[in-house]
Amino acid sequence: MNYDNLTLLTDFYELTMMQGYKKAKTDQRIGVFDLFYRRNPFDNGYAIAAGLQQAIEYIENLRFGSDDIEYLRSQRYFTEDFLSYLAGFKFTGEIRAVPEGTVVFPGEPLVRVKAPTSEAQLIETALLNIINHQSLIATKAARVVWAAQGDAVLEFGLRRAQGPDAGLYGARAAIIGGCNATSNVLAGLMFGIPIRGTHAHSWVMNFPDELSAFRAYAETFPQACTLLVDTYNTLKSGIPNAIKVFTEMRQRGQDLSACGIRLDSGDLSYLSKAARKMLDEAGFNKAVISASGDLDEYLIRDLKLQGAAITMWGVGTNLITSKDCPAFGGVYKMSALYDNGAAQYKMKLSDNPEKITNPGIKKIVRLYDSESGKIKADLITLEHETVDTSRDLVIFHPLETWKRMTLRANKYIARELLVPIFVNGQCVYNSPQVSEIRSYCRSELDTLWDEEKRLVNPHIIPVDFSQELWDLKQNMLNQLHI
Amino acid sequence: MNYDNLTLLTDFYELTMMQGYKKAKTDQRIGVFDLFYRRNPFDNGYAIAAGLQQAIEYIENLRFGSDDIEYLRSQRYFTEDFLSYLAGFKFTGEIRAVPEGTVVFPGEPLVRVKAPTSEAQLIETALLNIINHQSLIATKAARVVWAAQGDAVLEFGLRRAQGPDAGLYGARAAIIGGCNATSNVLAGLMFGIPIRGTHAHSWVMNFPDELSAFRAYAETFPQACTLLVDTYNTLKSGIPNAIKVFTEMRQRGQDLSACGIRLDSGDLSYLSKAARKMLDEAGFNKAVISASGDLDEYLIRDLKLQGAAITMWGVGTNLITSKDCPAFGGVYKMSALYDNGAAQYKMKLSDNPEKITNPGIKKIVRLYDSESGKIKADLITLEHETVDTSRDLVIFHPLETWKRMTLRANKYIARELLVPIFVNGQCVYNSPQVSEIRSYCRSELDTLWDEEKRLVNPHIIPVDFSQELWDLKQNMLNQLHI
Repeated sequence: MNYDNLTLLTDFYELTMMQGYKKAKTDQRIGVFDLFYRRNPFDNGYAIAAGLQQAIEYIENLRFGSDDIEYLRSQRYFTEDFLSYLAGFKFTGEIRAVPEGTVVFPGEPLVRVKAPTSEAQLIETALLNIINHQSLIATKAARVVWAAQGDAVLEFGLRRAQGPDAGLYGARAAIIGGCNATSNVLAGLMFGIPIRGTHAHSWVMNFPDELSAFRAYAETFPQACTLLVDTYNTLKSGIPNAIKVFTEMRQRGQDLSACGIRLDSGDLSYLSKAARKMLDEAGFNKAVISASGDLDEYLIRDLKLQGAAITMWGVGTNLITSKDCPAFGGVYKMSALYDNGAAQYKMKLSDNPEKITNPGIKKIVRLYDSESGKIKADLITLEHETVDTSRDLVIFHPLETWKRMTLRANKYIARELLVPIFVNGQCVYNSPQVSEIRSYCRSELDTLWDEEKRLVNPHIIPVDFSQELWDLKQNMLNQLHI
Repeated sequence: MNYDNLTLLTDFYELTMMQGYKKAKTDQRIGVFDLFYRRNPFDNGYAIAAGLQQAIEYIENLRFGSDDIEYLRSQRYFTEDFLSYLAGFKFTGEIRAVPEGTVVFPGEPLVRVKAPTSEAQLIETALLNIINHQSLIATKAARVVWAAQGDAVLEFGLRRAQGPDAGLYGARAAIIGGCNATSNVLAGLMFGIPIRGTHAHSWVMNFPDELSAFRAYAETFPQACTLLVDTYNTLKSGIPNAIKVFTEMRQRGQDLSACGIRLDSGDLSYLSKAARKMLDEAGFNKAVISASGDLDEYLIRDLKLQGAAITMWGVGTNLITSKDCPAFGGVYKMSALYDNGAAQYKMKLSDNPEKITNPGIKKIVRLYDSESGKIKADLITLEHETVDTSRDLVIFHPLETWKRMTLRANKYIARELLVPIFVNGQCVYNSPQVSEIRSYCRSELDTLWDEEKRLVNPHIIPVDFSQELWDLKQNMLNQLHI
């Protein structure tokens, strides 16, 4: 649960390759690997990077315990020499990454690892697992929150998550992406994020009738009394009983500002409008109407279009599993290998141009329009390159090179996205609190136009290559292709 | 990671309800809850129950530590009286469940909890989380393995799983559903399941050329040398280089019985047939051709239809995330509540007949044809009912009651599926090894006809109610409906 002792959370082939590198005496050669993804999930216009804090904790705790070594020995695959090496293993490399909550695009190195090949190889699987998962859920949450147009969105999915961690780290990522709170109590404890919840249908079924169930709940939690009104019949029983209880509370002089109802079935648009009318007529204009039940960004958008009187949305299965796209396609590919101090650039070929990797030691330069503060484009450059914003900059699409854009001198701002995380195996980065990451993510989303956040067919922000990177790749392609 | 201290892995509303029950002095009333699901994932003909062992470990480790209590106190929601109660909390109830690996159908209680309401309520969320996740992946794996028609299927999805647990318990569930091995080393250690893997593209890119990379791999692992042949060009470079290396191994007199190649891109049918021809012509008739890359049950079925020469399948993302249906819709509903020793039966209404729950304390009786050993139907009955197989049995569909089936005396076998797991809070069940569960699951799948395992539009096995359960439900419906 706490990223201790996840050293064996790796694919077996990472270990066989490590032994092979050691045998070939190449395990200490420094390699550079990029963690990136090829397509935005949901055909979205962007993704939100997340999971870095857990990736850091995983790397800081890397060590092969005696049980681990014993287990590997029992596989009859590894030499004693290699097992001794593992027993003393620690991470000594350098890592740069984009901060959590950053808006990112396909092809950009979200994490860049420069380390002895064996070390870089060992951490591939867990890094991908952690970053893929949290980036997926943060991106999904950002879509859902955007659809809710300022209403509160609560993450309620633990019971349908793909195991405990998916619930816990999924809740963390959902908050980063903009959700207001989670139902997951342990996630609240672990990450200091707000937790929420009231009662289930079983509460109502535990009392002789709905009214006494509501009364008992209001007596226990008068400060935040949200009553679930659909156990028997929403309009004929649930809402009238809720109004009776709120009236009794008002008569007792209790504060009703955080009271309300929750709808969990039926047509949420129709029922919420009817409920609003009934509550208003009884003088409970401030009673919150919340809703749950198979919600996602598309349904929330439609319900709002139909004038649903809902201002708080509980989102479960579709968010926590990212149901319409449950995997973030992050990959981890070698881009350079040092031999006697000199970097050899590396790339993997493919018949599919999208699957050809980008060689070289790269960074991301984000270019903003200085007036609007919105992103104009991202530029992937080699590490040593700089962008001089006092001069015009012409950028071009890496495949359709006739697609060009000129950024005028002093009319744009350049910002490098990768920041140092590990130097010589030591962590040099302080992860912000989840609440801070959430605020940062909100400011990041403000650097996109609404057209780029559209749920379907959004405008796509260009991710271009510097001329030098483009030339390097073309030259290598011409030489490598057999 | 080890189901220690997951006590707070629950929805906040479970805790608010617990405090409410305590305040209403009903927390010690015994409730009965069924964990069941409403529809098979993938429109499959069945599901595979899994996750029970982790559910047991979770319940055995339930306790609120001082940090947990302190955290709950900080929420300013709970009374000191209630927090003291939690500090001494333990599970005292009774649980019955179907064993892991069992073929199950919609509407059947997979887990039945009988416990003081507060205890039964607390464990709802984690029970659902664990059982939902593992049952989903085991069911998906059973489909993939069935499509592979006896070929080996390897689970390779850790890097795309929804967090570490999803990779770990997903690998466990995949083995239960019939996979042969996983790439996940920690899952191998935790569950004693076979692990597998050879090398990645990065291995090839680490050497000056593909041939020296293959030679180095063969030198390190001659006993199980699977070479990945698609880094540069499968037919022109990868397979010829693999054949060179196998030829050198043969010349050295090495055992080639576990050697082979892996295809990871391109058209797997075409490439595998070409590879088979090239390997056979070079005398390597036994070299295994394995494949990976976006595989699922549908693609495997199609590749086999096209005569692909692949006999080992590495399945990643689509299995570990259950991509086309990433949530198993298990729910947990109260079916009875004891008051002064007498059981009151409970049900939740809904405008949708599928969502109305089934009242009463129920069990599952599975009815097999005694000649074929295949399942004829399942019957949900009340706990006290018995089925006398020496007499004819007429069963009927619970909604379309004119759909009837007669099982002839002594021509059918009846078996109860729920077995005791906890009695008076003590676990009375020994979880089998994963390898034993896998074998049992295989024998369970043998009780279905192929028509019931068809990937699309399978024949559906009836799940009927006993007359007594049917009458109980109808009477309650007639009384409850407002």
